[in-house]
Amino acid sequence: MATMESIAQALGLSKATVSKALSGAEDVGEKTRLTVLKKAAELGYSKPRRRAVLGTLAVFVINMEYEKPDDFGYDIIAGFRKAAEPVGYRVKVVPLDLKTQRECGYDDYMADHGFCGGLLLGLDLLCPWLQEFAESSVPAVLYDNHVGGNANVTHVGVDNDEGMEMAVKYLKSLHHIRIGYLSGTLNSYVYRQRLEAFFRALRENGLTADRELMGHADHTSECLSKHLPRLLERGCTAIVCSHDMLAHSVMVHCAERGLRIPEDLSILGYDDIPLCRYTVPPLTTIRQDRTALGKSSFYALSSQLARVHLSTHLLHPALIERASCAAPQRKE
Amino acid sequence: MATMESIAQALGLSKATVSKALSGAEDVGEKTRLTVLKKAAELGYSKPRRRAVLGTLAVFVINMEYEKPDDFGYDIIAGFRKAAEPVGYRVKVVPLDLKTQRECGYDDYMADHGFCGGLLLGLDLLCPWLQEFAESSVPAVLYDNHVGGNANVTHVGVDNDEGMEMAVKYLKSLHHIRIGYLSGTLNSYVYRQRLEAFFRALRENGLTADRELMGHADHTSECLSKHLPRLLERGCTAIVCSHDMLAHSVMVHCAERGLRIPEDLSILGYDDIPLCRYTVPPLTTIRQDRTALGKSSFYALSSQLARVHLSTHLLHPALIERASCAAPQRKE
Repeated sequence: MATMESIAQALGLSKATVSKALSGAEDVGEKTRLTVLKKAAELGYSKPRRRAVLGTLAVFVINMEYEKPDDFGYDIIAGFRKAAEPVGYRVKVVPLDLKTQRECGYDDYMADHGFCGGLLLGLDLLCPWLQEFAESSVPAVLYDNHVGGNANVTHVGVDNDEGMEMAVKYLKSLHHIRIGYLSGTLNSYVYRQRLEAFFRALRENGLTADRELMGHADHTSECLSKHLPRLLERGCTAIVCSHDMLAHSVMVHCAERGLRIPEDLSILGYDDIPLCRYTVPPLTTIRQDRTALGKSSFYALSSQLARVHLSTHLLHPALIERASCAAPQRKE
Repeated sequence: MATMESIAQALGLSKATVSKALSGAEDVGEKTRLTVLKKAAELGYSKPRRRAVLGTLAVFVINMEYEKPDDFGYDIIAGFRKAAEPVGYRVKVVPLDLKTQRECGYDDYMADHGFCGGLLLGLDLLCPWLQEFAESSVPAVLYDNHVGGNANVTHVGVDNDEGMEMAVKYLKSLHHIRIGYLSGTLNSYVYRQRLEAFFRALRENGLTADRELMGHADHTSECLSKHLPRLLERGCTAIVCSHDMLAHSVMVHCAERGLRIPEDLSILGYDDIPLCRYTVPPLTTIRQDRTALGKSSFYALSSQLARVHLSTHLLHPALIERASCAAPQRKE
């Protein structure tokens, strides 16, 4: 590789002159400057990067789309890169399957691949690696999963207590009293957490926390066929969903059956995925700012790398009011 | 103040030459360099600091000692400065009294004094400012206090659920079954939180969560005279205290009454204040790393200033095993 020395030698100039020419210093004549630049280009000289690479961080992705701008993981990874790369980390995205997790432990995988820390997106409670984080020693940041008791592991996400408090308070302000809840699989730590947070919010807002007004299922079709009819029979005027995709399915299903949203039923989602703006009607939801999640996941990881051992690192959610919720219409 | 221009003018040199002489560039003769340095010293020239001041952060302290190295707040503030100052923030420590809080709101105070963000140490639930954080707009990080629903406010502290889980698990491993709890004032958010976390940990470890084995009081003397005798009568073989100062008082009080620690009673504290190493016997406790708390408080505040709105930012605690806990001795 060409260096300032080799350029200086090729041109019979001092290294100081070459250096000044390359940095555009005032006291080098225009002719010399151009000669140096030409030779530098010819020899393939490139300016050394100022900052050393501090290490490589892995972003493991499982159960989550991330490659297209509308995918849930896309902005999280973009935010992570935006915070990590300018300070000198390399970031590598690693799609993670069950086989890899079964064949190789987390610590070993990290050592084998030279990663100094990892962000894990989309792990569910059945993932083999989740058990490992009770004892792992390489810094790990788990999005939407909590493993207590290991100083090397940090939980990042949004504050779901606050999110459900916002959702319930908002629906109550619209005069809803019977609010139902539909949830995706409870093999997910975060869906369990949101469910409990929902009931806590009902109690804290003086509303009845009735387990009969709640349904969860591993598959959306089961939520729609089994639980939704029960919630409607029992007089729910509003339904909060554990995530926007489920809320969207509920809306489509209700529309097909002649129910008007929000006149006959209010629907409130959770996540604020890009789709929410384009559903019919546009979905009112609780936002997780995905870019901020990515950035703060890096802050949490770099805190771990600096031996400041974070346990929990949660963002504030926000209520995004669109058109899927309204006051319940009195039935005559 | 002297500038490079004024030095150049005084010596009849170009500014470029003065600049190069001051920076020790190679192409300035030794004589010129010395002349420039001499003139610079004479005119009182000082090199401009490289980094602009990004702003001034306030550390408000109430109900907490912080001036001496053994004071609880000392290391927190030192850690905060250690993280904040090198990146360009000024830090000002402001002892906060009730009068100031009553006379001037938080946002107004910050604007009046030109502070761009604040860390609040030692606020209790009766502090007038605590109410303001529901609506405040200047970034605030609250140590050991949680205010939900305001994007500008972050809660920092240690993970008390994890801390109490460690405490209870450890005592259970020593074969304690009847574990009591003594707490300072419940006008403190964190003492409330630790109390609930203690009971949760009992349940999760399959131990009886008996409210009769718990006592709290605003004053230590009341804990000692009213609650401690009841806990001992009811057969507690171990007592967890909400904070080390209380644990220390319990140990002294027990020793005066002829109870041996840990043979007759195990005592476990919380915080790991410097005193713990010097109590008789040295106190087993749950550590909050105060320097790391200070650093992470700054990370949380700078995250707020970068518009990444953190809700909760908790550190991992650690169990520090000393000599105040042991297996209960069977009474014959």
